[in-house]
Amino acid sequence: MADLLKHLDRISAPDVSAGVDAQRWLDQLTKPPGSLGRLEELARRLAEITGRCPPAVEHPVIFTLAGDHGVVEEGVSAYPQVVTAQMVENFIRGGAAVNVLARHAGARVVVADFGVAARLAEDVSLKAMKIAPGTRNMTRGPAMTRAQAQAAVEAGIELVEAERPRGLDLIGMGEMGIGNTTAASAMVAVFTGAPVGDVTGQGTGVDEEGRRRKVAAIERALLVNRPDASDALDVLAKVGGFEIAGLAGVALAGAAYRLPVVVDGFIAGAAALAAVRLAPAARHVLLASHRSAEPGHRHALEALGLEPYLDLGMRLGEGTGAALCIDLARAAVKILTEMATFKSAGVSTAGPGVTDA
Amino acid sequence: MADLLKHLDRISAPDVSAGVDAQRWLDQLTKPPGSLGRLEELARRLAEITGRCPPAVEHPVIFTLAGDHGVVEEGVSAYPQVVTAQMVENFIRGGAAVNVLARHAGARVVVADFGVAARLAEDVSLKAMKIAPGTRNMTRGPAMTRAQAQAAVEAGIELVEAERPRGLDLIGMGEMGIGNTTAASAMVAVFTGAPVGDVTGQGTGVDEEGRRRKVAAIERALLVNRPDASDALDVLAKVGGFEIAGLAGVALAGAAYRLPVVVDGFIAGAAALAAVRLAPAARHVLLASHRSAEPGHRHALEALGLEPYLDLGMRLGEGTGAALCIDLARAAVKILTEMATFKSAGVSTAGPGVTDA
Repeated sequence: MADLLKHLDRISAPDVSAGVDAQRWLDQLTKPPGSLGRLEELARRLAEITGRCPPAVEHPVIFTLAGDHGVVEEGVSAYPQVVTAQMVENFIRGGAAVNVLARHAGARVVVADFGVAARLAEDVSLKAMKIAPGTRNMTRGPAMTRAQAQAAVEAGIELVEAERPRGLDLIGMGEMGIGNTTAASAMVAVFTGAPVGDVTGQGTGVDEEGRRRKVAAIERALLVNRPDASDALDVLAKVGGFEIAGLAGVALAGAAYRLPVVVDGFIAGAAALAAVRLAPAARHVLLASHRSAEPGHRHALEALGLEPYLDLGMRLGEGTGAALCIDLARAAVKILTEMATFKSAGVSTAGPGVTDA
Repeated sequence: MADLLKHLDRISAPDVSAGVDAQRWLDQLTKPPGSLGRLEELARRLAEITGRCPPAVEHPVIFTLAGDHGVVEEGVSAYPQVVTAQMVENFIRGGAAVNVLARHAGARVVVADFGVAARLAEDVSLKAMKIAPGTRNMTRGPAMTRAQAQAAVEAGIELVEAERPRGLDLIGMGEMGIGNTTAASAMVAVFTGAPVGDVTGQGTGVDEEGRRRKVAAIERALLVNRPDASDALDVLAKVGGFEIAGLAGVALAGAAYRLPVVVDGFIAGAAALAAVRLAPAARHVLLASHRSAEPGHRHALEALGLEPYLDLGMRLGEGTGAALCIDLARAAVKILTEMATFKSAGVSTAGPGVTDA
């Protein structure tokens, strides 16, 4: 725990002055003040988080962590468990949605095995950080040990640290794991106190009967394990997942190194919530990319105090929403760096005495 | 009118079969069916509009039309009229928000003078299509003659036709004109029957007193001119603007040539509404980029039956919202063209018999 606690101590408050600088600059650009709405807010937040004005988003990386879930035994997913490993191979070959959208956004994807049940072939593009081959079935006992949960969080931090020498300046959170909406729903129910039925959706596409099985499995897991909402590691261990704990570490690393962290959808949201419960100051580096179609996401976002930038009814995960938001973040930075000012362009400003013109 | 009517006759229904092909392909890609939400819908609509699957968005162009408005005499804008001409120069030099966001999206900006009050220096990057140096003050009589309205619509069509040899495959609508939210509010009030007060906002940033002046000016203009809601050219002539009529023509050209037309914000929305009233079948090529902070935009979108893709509180115009949506459209096309299928990636599909895995 010593290393993790030391890491958490590094997390500091946002740099309000860089945000003020960004807003001042935005107000000199050739547009009515505030008229780019949340794009301006995004630019300002990137400045606050990084402490730089203008901020740079030149080397964004989406960390897509994979892990399997013992709870799939309960029939909670529309897909067989082997799909986790198959999709990891798809990520490595660049054929998944996150690869396509990351390329579109000019972001790299770092794929990591945090707990895939299958043995994956070694590949230079795959970070091997497997804690164990899948969690245990949380309806019968804890998904993992507390030591494993901590190891996964720390591995997430290491993953980010390994990318820093390559210029990493923005983090996107992504994940893959058949069964992981079940874990995320359980976590969000514990952290927010919302009824399990309210935070449990259809995941990859189970029918209403499948959804009821998910709700029942989660309720059983909470009864069996009694996770302590005030102890995020306990929640991660009992009803979380290796990739979810790893992503909590990714977010905490972002906070410690003042890197903006773009949260993806529901599962990344649950991981972000765990990170914020471990270190409340981590909240200031988080940006919510999109509003997922999963019903529990709303609860996670509310608990995080975040308003998403996009609302496209997506529910894929992998980091796909993060990719679209990274693209938007790059656009927001360009507004700061490429637009002319009223002065440089010789454009008249608004003000008293001109409203009658 | 003969040419315009002939043009309108070219507008046909969407190609449902290309949309079906797109959906069928989307469902074979390595993701749960429908899990990319509106990004999938966007891909499907691009296929329907163009009749091609996959559709191409390789040469998108944002048409940013500028015009001045005699109604500024009534003190309806926070900025002096000269800003229209100054911003046109800013567009030509590439320093405005639309230039930055269009470059980000890989789109060209075509800037056209449809009725700027000032004499603009000739420039190879500026399309000179001035109908007249600004409209007349609509509170005292029609903003323009019916012949001028028609000429502006036809000039908008010509503008698009001139870009077709360069490969134009998607249109973005953009505009600049001090005072043009007043014209757009008047048009939307007429076309939708909504009370003037409900469709009139703060434009570039007038205070509440300024907004009340706008409402009063529009109510006077409607009383003086009595535009006929069932005659879109009459509405454009009496309370529209040269750049707005031109944009209606741009949209009609898109419809005739099966080019997707990305509507920008409130003013482009009013122009799109005029286009649809001239040729109802034009509706099928329209894509609403974003929901503007201007209150009248909601009414325009409802009348158009369009749901915007983005909601970022923007209210700048120029084509800035269209640019962000074009970027999204390119991402949607890449989903169709770059993602692996379940078969090509060797990923198991969902289905009966696997839900218990």
